[in-house]
Amino acid sequence: MLKKGFVRTISIVKPSLSDNTADAQRLEQRLKKELSGDTISIPLHVLKKLPSNLRSWGFKARAVLFKDQCSWILLDLLDPASDSPALGAAIDIGSTRVVISLINLETGQEISETGFDNPQAVIGPDILTRIHYSNQDQGLAELNLLVIDAVNFNMSKLCREHGYKKEDIYIVVGAGNTAMTHLFLGIESFEIIKEPYIPCVNIPDTLPAKSLNLDINQNGVAFLFPNIGSYFGGDLISGILFSNLDQKENPSLMVDVGTNAEIVVGSKEYLIACAGAAGPALEGGVSKMGMTARPGVIDKVWVDPETNDLKVHTIDEKKPVGICGSGMIDLAASLFLSKRIDIRGKFSKQNCKKKELTEKNGIMDFILVDKNDSGTDQPICLSQVDLNSLTSSKAAMYTILEVIVCNTAGLNFKDLEKFYVAGTFGSFINPVSAISIGMLPDIPVETFEVLGNSSLGGAKVLLKVPDAFERVMKIRKSITYIELNVNQEFMNMFSGAKFYPHTDTSRFPSLQISSFS
Amino acid sequence: MLKKGFVRTISIVKPSLSDNTADAQRLEQRLKKELSGDTISIPLHVLKKLPSNLRSWGFKARAVLFKDQCSWILLDLLDPASDSPALGAAIDIGSTRVVISLINLETGQEISETGFDNPQAVIGPDILTRIHYSNQDQGLAELNLLVIDAVNFNMSKLCREHGYKKEDIYIVVGAGNTAMTHLFLGIESFEIIKEPYIPCVNIPDTLPAKSLNLDINQNGVAFLFPNIGSYFGGDLISGILFSNLDQKENPSLMVDVGTNAEIVVGSKEYLIACAGAAGPALEGGVSKMGMTARPGVIDKVWVDPETNDLKVHTIDEKKPVGICGSGMIDLAASLFLSKRIDIRGKFSKQNCKKKELTEKNGIMDFILVDKNDSGTDQPICLSQVDLNSLTSSKAAMYTILEVIVCNTAGLNFKDLEKFYVAGTFGSFINPVSAISIGMLPDIPVETFEVLGNSSLGGAKVLLKVPDAFERVMKIRKSITYIELNVNQEFMNMFSGAKFYPHTDTSRFPSLQISSFS
Repeated sequence: MLKKGFVRTISIVKPSLSDNTADAQRLEQRLKKELSGDTISIPLHVLKKLPSNLRSWGFKARAVLFKDQCSWILLDLLDPASDSPALGAAIDIGSTRVVISLINLETGQEISETGFDNPQAVIGPDILTRIHYSNQDQGLAELNLLVIDAVNFNMSKLCREHGYKKEDIYIVVGAGNTAMTHLFLGIESFEIIKEPYIPCVNIPDTLPAKSLNLDINQNGVAFLFPNIGSYFGGDLISGILFSNLDQKENPSLMVDVGTNAEIVVGSKEYLIACAGAAGPALEGGVSKMGMTARPGVIDKVWVDPETNDLKVHTIDEKKPVGICGSGMIDLAASLFLSKRIDIRGKFSKQNCKKKELTEKNGIMDFILVDKNDSGTDQPICLSQVDLNSLTSSKAAMYTILEVIVCNTAGLNFKDLEKFYVAGTFGSFINPVSAISIGMLPDIPVETFEVLGNSSLGGAKVLLKVPDAFERVMKIRKSITYIELNVNQEFMNMFSGAKFYPHTDTSRFPSLQISSFS
Repeated sequence: MLKKGFVRTISIVKPSLSDNTADAQRLEQRLKKELSGDTISIPLHVLKKLPSNLRSWGFKARAVLFKDQCSWILLDLLDPASDSPALGAAIDIGSTRVVISLINLETGQEISETGFDNPQAVIGPDILTRIHYSNQDQGLAELNLLVIDAVNFNMSKLCREHGYKKEDIYIVVGAGNTAMTHLFLGIESFEIIKEPYIPCVNIPDTLPAKSLNLDINQNGVAFLFPNIGSYFGGDLISGILFSNLDQKENPSLMVDVGTNAEIVVGSKEYLIACAGAAGPALEGGVSKMGMTARPGVIDKVWVDPETNDLKVHTIDEKKPVGICGSGMIDLAASLFLSKRIDIRGKFSKQNCKKKELTEKNGIMDFILVDKNDSGTDQPICLSQVDLNSLTSSKAAMYTILEVIVCNTAGLNFKDLEKFYVAGTFGSFINPVSAISIGMLPDIPVETFEVLGNSSLGGAKVLLKVPDAFERVMKIRKSITYIELNVNQEFMNMFSGAKFYPHTDTSRFPSLQISSFS
C-alpha cells in the first residue's frame, strides 16, 4: 500500500452549528492538510452528490487524486467501504512501438504491460513522413485517431484481461518524443520540422482525458511529459526521472541509443544534454542495420577460445535468420579481438579463415553463418560496407560522448559514477564488446547499468510518487541543451574514433592488457 | 476601451534558431508579462491551431481571458484583425426574478439588460418549497433545468436583439443567495435547510460553462459568487463589492431589505454582517404587506400643508389600486407627523378626520383613498392590524441596525460615512419618511444612497475589473457573521423601537425640531 500515493482514505470533521463551513470547503481543508498543499479543486461531479455521500459514508471517503504542476486535483471521491479500484496507465508513446503499463494507484503495484506497433506506421515508418502527412487536410486528425484508438483498444483489453474496467483508469501518463507527443495531443506539429524547429508546446497541461478522446473514467486526466524542444522530448525527461540522474551526488550519464543518440550527463547540480544524429555518421547506423529482435536473430557472438571460430547465439535458439544491433557489436568486437579486422576496421585476409571471406564486386563479405546452418537458406554475412557503417556509428557515439563528457562537462570518463544505457537497443548491448570496439569508454563494467524502457519507467514513477511531478519540472528547467557542432574539431575527434578501438590506445587500458599484451 | 480588461491585444516575440521556446510557452510568457501573473494555462482548443494561427496573424493575437481565484485563464485567442466581439453575461439569480445584463468585455460597456420571473416559481414561490422539492427524485434536475433553460433562452434572445450571437458570450458571472446558487449549479441543496444548515459549497470554482449546460461559447466559463453560509449568499457578497464597502476609509453600512433584512457594516478594516428574520417581527413585514410596484400602486404619500389632508402619488399616475412598501412607509410617516397616530402607533380618533376612520369588528381602519377615487371600486385602507405589523417591522429593522452598528461594531450611527440601501424594495424608500417613523436612524439624509440591484451590480463589476475577483475572495474571508440572538436584551431594545419614533426621542433630534417644537 502506497501511504503517500494518489489514493487516500480520509476522515472529515462533521459539521455543527458552531462550524457551518460548507461540505466542499470542509473536504478541501482536510485534503489540504493531507496533501500539505495550498489549493485543491473539488470537481463538479463530486460536488453534485457531496452532501448525501459524505453523510451516508459517515464523513469518510477515499479520494482519488493527481498532482499537477500547480496543484493537487481531486479526480473522484469513492465510498470508503468499497474496494473499487483506481488505476493509472503509463504509456511509452514510441514512434515504432507503444507500450502501456497498468498501475494500481492505491498499492503502486504494476498489474500488467502490453505493447503494440504504433499504427501510425501505415502513414509512414518515420516521424518526418508522418509530420508531412499531418499538414495535409485531415492528416493530423487521422494520425491522432490512429494512435488514440489503438491506445484505447489496448488499455481496455489490458483491463478486461485482468478483471478491471476501463472506467477504473483515472490517470494516463504518456511519454514520447516531441513529435509523437504533439500527434498524441492532436496539435499542429508541422513547425517541429521546419527551421527554426519550434514545438507547439513545451509543457502540456494536465488535461481531461476525454478532451483527448481517451476512453477511461470520464473524470480522468491525461498528462504528457514536457519537452525542451523539437530534438529533446518527453521520453528523455521521463528517462532522466527513471534513472534518478537528477538526484545523483556524483556525475553520471544516460545514453539512449535509438535512431538518434541522446545523451544526458549530470548530477543533482546540473544536467547537460545533447541529441540528434551527428552528421551522416549515425544515419543507417547500428540500430538501423540490425534486425529487430525476434526468434532466430543472432543476439550474441563470441570467439571460441579453442578453435578461434566465431560462435553465435540466437533468440529462442532457432536457426539463425539475421543479426540484431547488439549481435553486431559483439560480432565487430569478436572480429577485432581475433584480429580478423585491423585497427582501421578492414577485413584482414591474412587473419580470417579462408571459408569466412568472399568477395563480390571487389567488396569483402564476411560469412558469419554458412548457408547450411542458416534459417533462410542464405549465408548470414557482414560486408565491408556494413562494417564501415558500424565503424562510423561507433566512432560517432564515442565522439559525442567525448564532446559532452570531456569537452562540455569538463569531466573524465572515469569520473562517471554510473553510465546508464536506455532504450530497447541499449538493453542488449554487451558493454565489454562495446568497449572493445571503442564505442563506449573504457570504464569499469560495473559502472554500466541497463535501464530498459526508461521512457515507460519514468511514466510509471509519476503514477506512484506524487512528488515526481515537481522533479519532472525541475529536470526540464535545469537541462542545458547543447547543439552538437559538427565542426573541424569534431571531425578530428571523429577520425581518431574511427580506429579500433581508437588512434589513442591509451584510452583503453583494459583492452591493451587483455588483447594486445 | 478597457485597457486592463478581459480582452487584450498582444504581440509575441517571433521564434528563431537562438530562441526555440515553443509557441505555447512563448504565448504564456507574453501573457504572464501582460497580466503580471504567475501562471496561465493555454487550453487545448487554442493549442491545436496555435502554430498556424500565430504565423498567419504575424505573431499578434487578441486574447479573451478570465481571472480566477488561482490564476488567469485563457478562454480564446482571436485574429487581431477581426472585430469579433467578446461578451460577458452578469446574472442576478433571484428567487423571484432573474436579471441578465450583457457586457462587452473589450469596452466594458453594458449592452442591454433583461429580466424575467424565475420559472422555478412553478414548483414553489419560496425557497423552502423548492429545496424540499429538490430532495425528491429528479426534483433537483428539474429545478436546475428550469432556471438554466430560462437563462439560456433569455441570454440568446438578448444577444439576437442586439446583433450578437450566443457564442460571443465567454463569461457568465452569477450572483444569487446560497440556495439559488446551489440550484443553479445543480448540486444537492437539502442540507442548507436542515440543522446545522450546511451548504454543499462556499466557494464554487470557475467552471466550464458547458458543464452547467449554459449555452454560450463552447470554451466559455461560469463563475458563481461565493457565500459564507446558508443565510449569507453570493448576492450579498456581490452587493458589498458593488457598494465598495470593503474599500471605505470610514465605517459604512449596507442594508438589503427583502423578505429578510441583511446588513453589513464595516470598512476596509473589517466587515460585520447579520441576516435573517429577527424572530416573528419581520414575518409578514413591510415588504410582504405591500404590493409589488405596478401602474396604479401608491408609491408616495404626503401631508398637504394647507389642508392637512393626505395626498398620494401612483405609479404612471393611474387610479390607485393598492400601496407598495415604500408608500406604506410614507403613509406611516405622514400619519405620525400629522399626529393621526400616537407614539404607540395607534390611530388617534381625535386627530384623524372623521371620514378617514372606520371601525370593523372593533378594529380601526384608516381610509387613505375613498372608493370613488379608487381604481378598484373599494376604498384603499390601512387597518390597525396592518399598522401593527408595520410597527413591528420598523422596530425590528431599527433594533437589528442598533445591535450590529452600536452593540457589535461599537459605533454610533453618526459615525457612518455612507448608509447604502440595496434591493428593489429599498430603492423606493424615502429615507426622510423612514427616519420619521424610527425605522432608519436619524443621520443626515445625504448619508443614504440607493444602490438598486446591487447583486447584479457586483456581477457586472466582475466582468469589467479583473482585480475584482481578489476583492470578492477578500470580502468573503473578512466578513464576521453575527447570529442575531433574539434574547431578553434584544426584546428590550425591540420594545423601545416599537414606539414612534422611539421611546428615546433624543435619538431623533431632527424629528424633535421639525415636528415637536
